[in-house]
Amino acid sequence: MTEGNAGADQPLAALRAQIDDVDSQILDLLARRLELVGEIGEVKGRHALPIYAPDREAAMISAKRALAAERGLSPDLVEDVLRRCMRESYTHEKNMGFTRQAPDLGPAVVVGGGGRMGSLFARMLTLSGYDVRVVERDDPPEQVASSVRDAGLVVVSVPIHDTVAVLRSLPPLPPGCLLVDLTSTKRAVMATMLEVHPGPVLGLHPMFGPDVDSLAKQVVAVVPGRDEAASRWLVEQIRLWGARVHELPAETHDELMGLIQALRHFSTFVYGWHLAHEDHDLDELLALSSPIYRLELVMVGRLFAQDAELYYDIITASPDVVALIQRYLTRYAQAFELLLRGDREEFVARFREIGDWFGDHAETFLAESRGLLAHADATR
Amino acid sequence: MTEGNAGADQPLAALRAQIDDVDSQILDLLARRLELVGEIGEVKGRHALPIYAPDREAAMISAKRALAAERGLSPDLVEDVLRRCMRESYTHEKNMGFTRQAPDLGPAVVVGGGGRMGSLFARMLTLSGYDVRVVERDDPPEQVASSVRDAGLVVVSVPIHDTVAVLRSLPPLPPGCLLVDLTSTKRAVMATMLEVHPGPVLGLHPMFGPDVDSLAKQVVAVVPGRDEAASRWLVEQIRLWGARVHELPAETHDELMGLIQALRHFSTFVYGWHLAHEDHDLDELLALSSPIYRLELVMVGRLFAQDAELYYDIITASPDVVALIQRYLTRYAQAFELLLRGDREEFVARFREIGDWFGDHAETFLAESRGLLAHADATR
Repeated sequence: MTEGNAGADQPLAALRAQIDDVDSQILDLLARRLELVGEIGEVKGRHALPIYAPDREAAMISAKRALAAERGLSPDLVEDVLRRCMRESYTHEKNMGFTRQAPDLGPAVVVGGGGRMGSLFARMLTLSGYDVRVVERDDPPEQVASSVRDAGLVVVSVPIHDTVAVLRSLPPLPPGCLLVDLTSTKRAVMATMLEVHPGPVLGLHPMFGPDVDSLAKQVVAVVPGRDEAASRWLVEQIRLWGARVHELPAETHDELMGLIQALRHFSTFVYGWHLAHEDHDLDELLALSSPIYRLELVMVGRLFAQDAELYYDIITASPDVVALIQRYLTRYAQAFELLLRGDREEFVARFREIGDWFGDHAETFLAESRGLLAHADATR
Repeated sequence: MTEGNAGADQPLAALRAQIDDVDSQILDLLARRLELVGEIGEVKGRHALPIYAPDREAAMISAKRALAAERGLSPDLVEDVLRRCMRESYTHEKNMGFTRQAPDLGPAVVVGGGGRMGSLFARMLTLSGYDVRVVERDDPPEQVASSVRDAGLVVVSVPIHDTVAVLRSLPPLPPGCLLVDLTSTKRAVMATMLEVHPGPVLGLHPMFGPDVDSLAKQVVAVVPGRDEAASRWLVEQIRLWGARVHELPAETHDELMGLIQALRHFSTFVYGWHLAHEDHDLDELLALSSPIYRLELVMVGRLFAQDAELYYDIITASPDVVALIQRYLTRYAQAFELLLRGDREEFVARFREIGDWFGDHAETFLAESRGLLAHADATR
């Protein structure tokens, strides 16, 4: 019953040597593929083409799936391998140059440019050929004033709870300078930007952490402020970096962020609290987990390796959050009542109503999650 | 700014043709690799070696990572591609024969063998060379009695809320016959099995849905009942199918399932309810989502493409669930109070305490989730 099983050793060793040989050839081809994609990136960079072209990607995947089927290979396997290669390519392209969308722009100043998100934007702007200056909020006022004197762009990237104060402390900006923030709630910050600067204003909210490999496929929320024409180049520049840009008003943005950020992070915090109090052996929980529960444990536990203060600020950033969480808690209690009553029929009826609300998405999510869970299984 | 950009078309087309050529070679090698792994599976099947050997897999991955680094390729890329290939191999191996661990066993009867989980077990037993008989709970009693008369194994795989009744309706089994259930709570079912059958008894709980590609790497919880020696062959057989077997007492199993299944599924149900009532545009939520939130939406929405009654039964299967959910609700309300008070210090202090409870897992989960989220991004 062990690997030392006589009779199997020799044929297994021979087959494994052949697999090693195949793997070595696959490695060579992966390296060659990355080189070729790098060359495509250079051509795109020279011609101001975005590094991420959704339609072309979809067409390419579809052609390779058909090819896989012809050769009796699983199309899903081929798609997954190619997508993994593409993800690697985007990472490689991140240090590539990008065409500058506003060739005559004055210096781009990143306030808080030493922070993680600030330095990501400073790097992307530099790679796109802008003259980038980094300023910290503790720098002497004269120094800040001299940095922004001829600025074409000022990006404020400081912790949420400092943003309004930092905006108010800014020296006057040149009238044509574009003022931008990267904060995760928009109403108060946008109002302050419009108040302190009479020129063009734009709100940006990168929907990802500062540790992403590349902006390819990441979402950036765009909230219009003032003089849209004067900020169009920046939105275009962000598209060139590969991001998906989604524009919406500050109010809608903040409402949706209640769900996407505040309720999500708060509930994760509470679930971690609950787990710690129930105090079962985490290793045994992991050993026993179904794929879905393992994924949940991973997504909950990851929170607590991160910055408590940042999460408190994100959760409490919008004044509507308390009401949103209150509604959630009320609904949880209602559902619990249903469970206490043992009301199977109502559970089933509600379940189906909610399914109707999800519509076709429920089925596509089920299919998508199968692949994700299989991936999560394969890596553990 | 479009793909029609003059000057870029020709070099891009040439590079893309080269990529197509590389991809075609990669496809050939993937097909060859699967063939070789299939041959390994045959050798293993002949020699009763398990299809999943964690140590060997770890050593192989580590060697290929080193090879990747030597050639200037990302080790993570190579690991991900190889793991995806291995996952495919397990799927291929699922229809392969397995060595029979109990060569002299009488017929294996699967009660509820027409259901999804029942038919998966019936198929695996057949592939392992057992004489498998499928019985439904509605079959005439004489028919059931005649099927089990000489049985060496009886596996009961019926909906949770019918399991006890079906067990009680079974005709007497041969004294040496092993009686097994596949139910997701164990205390009541185990007590009933021990009562209705004086011979060997074992509880199994497959921690996965019946739609898995293969048992490789999946977890099966094993709850000892009576006469452990008489069930050892089945546990070994399940290991040969590639599963990870985790043994624990019925009480502990049911406690942990409260968290792993009941609270998890109930909270997902409530979150879906909440989302449907908040009634924002789901497409806009998706368009705006961070990778983490998208993953959450997918994992919530997938529930509602599934069977409401099954989930009600899983949630309410254990009598301790109400108390567990009550504790969760109380903790949620406590945490909400903290938010209402605006108590940043306490939030931060609690956050760090919970982080201490997670210990090193928080960091490893953060690293693991990065790969998962990148994968989720790449597939959207």
